[in-house]
Amino acid sequence: MSSLSSLWTQKRGGNESQRNAISPTRQEDFPQWYQQVIKEADLAENSGVRGCMVLKPDGYAIWEAIQGQFDALMKAAGVKNAAFPIFIPLEFFQREAQHAEGFATEVAVVTHKRLEKDANGILQPTSKLEEPLIVRPTSEMIIGDSMARWIQSHRDLPLRLNQWCSVVRMEMRTRLFLRTTEFWWQEGHSAHASAPDAQNWVQQMFDLYHTFITNTLALPVVPGEKIESERFAGAERTYTVEAMMQDRKALQAATSHYLGQNFAKAMNIQFQNSEGSMEHAYTTSWGMSTRIVGGLIMAHSDDDGLRLPPRIAPLQVMILPVIPKDEVRGEVLEYAAKVKSAIQALTYNGRPITVQVDDRDMRGGEKNWEAVKKGYPIRIELGPKDIAQGQVVVSRRDLPTGAKAFMSLEQLIDLLPQILEEQQVNYTENGKRHLSENTRTDVRSLDELKQLFSGNDDEEKGMQGAWVRAPWSGDDSTLDALKELKLTVRCLPLDQSGETGTCILTGKPASQEVIIAKAY
Amino acid sequence: MSSLSSLWTQKRGGNESQRNAISPTRQEDFPQWYQQVIKEADLAENSGVRGCMVLKPDGYAIWEAIQGQFDALMKAAGVKNAAFPIFIPLEFFQREAQHAEGFATEVAVVTHKRLEKDANGILQPTSKLEEPLIVRPTSEMIIGDSMARWIQSHRDLPLRLNQWCSVVRMEMRTRLFLRTTEFWWQEGHSAHASAPDAQNWVQQMFDLYHTFITNTLALPVVPGEKIESERFAGAERTYTVEAMMQDRKALQAATSHYLGQNFAKAMNIQFQNSEGSMEHAYTTSWGMSTRIVGGLIMAHSDDDGLRLPPRIAPLQVMILPVIPKDEVRGEVLEYAAKVKSAIQALTYNGRPITVQVDDRDMRGGEKNWEAVKKGYPIRIELGPKDIAQGQVVVSRRDLPTGAKAFMSLEQLIDLLPQILEEQQVNYTENGKRHLSENTRTDVRSLDELKQLFSGNDDEEKGMQGAWVRAPWSGDDSTLDALKELKLTVRCLPLDQSGETGTCILTGKPASQEVIIAKAY
Repeated sequence: MSSLSSLWTQKRGGNESQRNAISPTRQEDFPQWYQQVIKEADLAENSGVRGCMVLKPDGYAIWEAIQGQFDALMKAAGVKNAAFPIFIPLEFFQREAQHAEGFATEVAVVTHKRLEKDANGILQPTSKLEEPLIVRPTSEMIIGDSMARWIQSHRDLPLRLNQWCSVVRMEMRTRLFLRTTEFWWQEGHSAHASAPDAQNWVQQMFDLYHTFITNTLALPVVPGEKIESERFAGAERTYTVEAMMQDRKALQAATSHYLGQNFAKAMNIQFQNSEGSMEHAYTTSWGMSTRIVGGLIMAHSDDDGLRLPPRIAPLQVMILPVIPKDEVRGEVLEYAAKVKSAIQALTYNGRPITVQVDDRDMRGGEKNWEAVKKGYPIRIELGPKDIAQGQVVVSRRDLPTGAKAFMSLEQLIDLLPQILEEQQVNYTENGKRHLSENTRTDVRSLDELKQLFSGNDDEEKGMQGAWVRAPWSGDDSTLDALKELKLTVRCLPLDQSGETGTCILTGKPASQEVIIAKAY
Repeated sequence: MSSLSSLWTQKRGGNESQRNAISPTRQEDFPQWYQQVIKEADLAENSGVRGCMVLKPDGYAIWEAIQGQFDALMKAAGVKNAAFPIFIPLEFFQREAQHAEGFATEVAVVTHKRLEKDANGILQPTSKLEEPLIVRPTSEMIIGDSMARWIQSHRDLPLRLNQWCSVVRMEMRTRLFLRTTEFWWQEGHSAHASAPDAQNWVQQMFDLYHTFITNTLALPVVPGEKIESERFAGAERTYTVEAMMQDRKALQAATSHYLGQNFAKAMNIQFQNSEGSMEHAYTTSWGMSTRIVGGLIMAHSDDDGLRLPPRIAPLQVMILPVIPKDEVRGEVLEYAAKVKSAIQALTYNGRPITVQVDDRDMRGGEKNWEAVKKGYPIRIELGPKDIAQGQVVVSRRDLPTGAKAFMSLEQLIDLLPQILEEQQVNYTENGKRHLSENTRTDVRSLDELKQLFSGNDDEEKGMQGAWVRAPWSGDDSTLDALKELKLTVRCLPLDQSGETGTCILTGKPASQEVIIAKAY
């Protein structure tokens, strides 16, 4: 595709020295910038319940867009949606020791089923439950309980289920989207008749995440496998899609787990195999959560606010009528409606292009900045002068904020799908460049690693070194050195070079490469 | 539309004396029949958590169909989806006294946030929360907490929000779909600048439910207002859509509540009105839950299993290839695929017709009965003979199970949307007739009421009298007489005749008519 960006001139409307819309900037204080982007785009907020967030309509719309598109991909792969209980009896919960241990420190426990007034007239919990109930932090145990009933024969396998729901982990330090006590996700769970079948499925779902996150969310990622200490509690293997944020920290964007027979044994999921004998099933689970919305924000947005790849933006085009005086209102809004219907008839990425007219009675500049901060991929300004000249003024969120293109309505309709796709490609390419520029393969020792991450006094505020790709011995006892630097092994990238080298932490021989980084 | 049913002959394949697929029948034992229909159609099951159900894939698909269609209607009406916390701090919960009292006896209370092993190595709750959290039974309080932050001025109103989620009420006696500890629903919440605005909105959402439940779900209903004692806890007015089941019991299918300023005062939702002074907002809430899936089952299904109106059936057409010997398999499946793609290109009710081929290696009769019990509106059998004659054999779930129509593929493609619509109309008309035939307006005294409901010794098993429409004084103290008969006032129907009469319970003058019935 040839670049259309030459149509855009770097002309900032009115005030050339306008400050950035978001303060602080990314360079000044990345975490604060992140909070401000969310606030200005009105995506989410902290609630009156400690650690729990509210997904506001414009934030929820991003999650709905992810749900809609990823749900269709899962269904096409043979996954069926269902809904399982919100509670897990404590007895189920502790059947898989590693799993229970992994989640025991952060579960919400229901112990009573009634409230009654005390002497002061204040409602207090009463009617203690015989057995406490855990609010699901994940649903392996409760879905396993159903699987055990549903599966009798190898003919019942594979069984591939998914649910969209929220789960609860009692986090102490929370951050909108990235780490909250309650979060929303899809959790897929499958059972298979053999280990290879289950492993193939884990790989297939992992590929589905990788493709979706790359092609639709335009995140720069490294797909890989987790090292043992970073696996899902109870899993035999965990695959992860690790995305690089603009501050060079890593975000685990989605995971796919091979659970072996661990959970099948704990929940008694057995089937009669083709030889007629009973065998425990081989299970998997895989998930992607609302934290990926945080990833979208941190990977794409700029110092003027939210930016979203067009393929996932809930609203792709915002029309901003310019109404200098009341007498022209009718005429301008009529033209806006005409442009809107022409755009609605277009498709991009297999769906009708979404478009709205902002007809609120507000100053034009204020409206425009709001639209910038909301991250709509395309803004179209039109006023009396534009009507007279049969033109529209088009701004793209991926180009500098002041840049405008003047084009005829015909040209806009002709080019719009291409402009959206070019924008999608731009975000993808920007991300790839960022990932490549900030992945260091020349860091060879713990000292060099220390040096790389010592540049910043207040580590939380600024840019975070880089990702380091280096050989590692595989010895878990060496990881404490990383912990001190607040670093973790993100993954063993799938594309191992296969060459042997020396372990970055110990200097000993090492045959596997890992990605080391700070992470959310 | 002219009736196409004359194309169908009453020919039962093979065994004329075949028993009904569901045992017991509706007449023999309605509640047991209901459980069996669910089991045979594989819609839901009780879980390992007391009172909680599992929505199995085919049951969840019905809920997804309801969600998809009703969500689009809400959005078109200006409602925005969002997501609010699963927990409500106890302090919020008790701020509206009536509301708290209404739900206090059935709430799940989270009191701890961690598990630790006891002396026997068993995990036990630990780390008590400073303040208990209620698992939401409904979200007025927690959404009100957000509304109080989001609303400052009359320009922020109306605010119309909705969330799709599950809620928890610790029910003692549960029944799949109809009454479960956890259920899934949409709950809409709005805030307005004046009482009339809020009341208009309550009415608008009520109309939306009524239209959807009538036109799409084909349920026979009476729309009306709840009497005071049956209102939502904390509401000033509650509107309800009451549906009649085949056993003549009532099911509350959806409700829309006017909350006045009660919740706004409790949660401090204030706005600056157009005169510049502060005022509490006027709020509403409205909901429809998975219990309506139970209503669909009980209103439409027959003694051969599930029946679903085509507009809501997740799968509208099942193709059943008839393969008498292996040599013809390829040919038959190829024909099935051809029929499938021809059907997929058709639309009904604004959407592509959904169709699948059941190519499992099973006896044809078994497959057919399974498809009957699953309630697919249309079954299409095709085998070598049909290929030779260029025909298909079509069965409609709304006609007696043995009836078949032989038609050319061209005729099928020509008629299919019409056949589906005729089926939708049939269910609607059947329901209306049932409602009309079983609504008694001639029951005039408590004695006559007693007589009407005394016919059945084991009241739970058989048909339940009728709905009685009669004048009532409006005096709540007279309701005990109904309670003894296990009857309730379902609603004040909207279409009051306006005539005065004598109260059915007291013989005193009464100016309002009510519907009295047994209910789920």
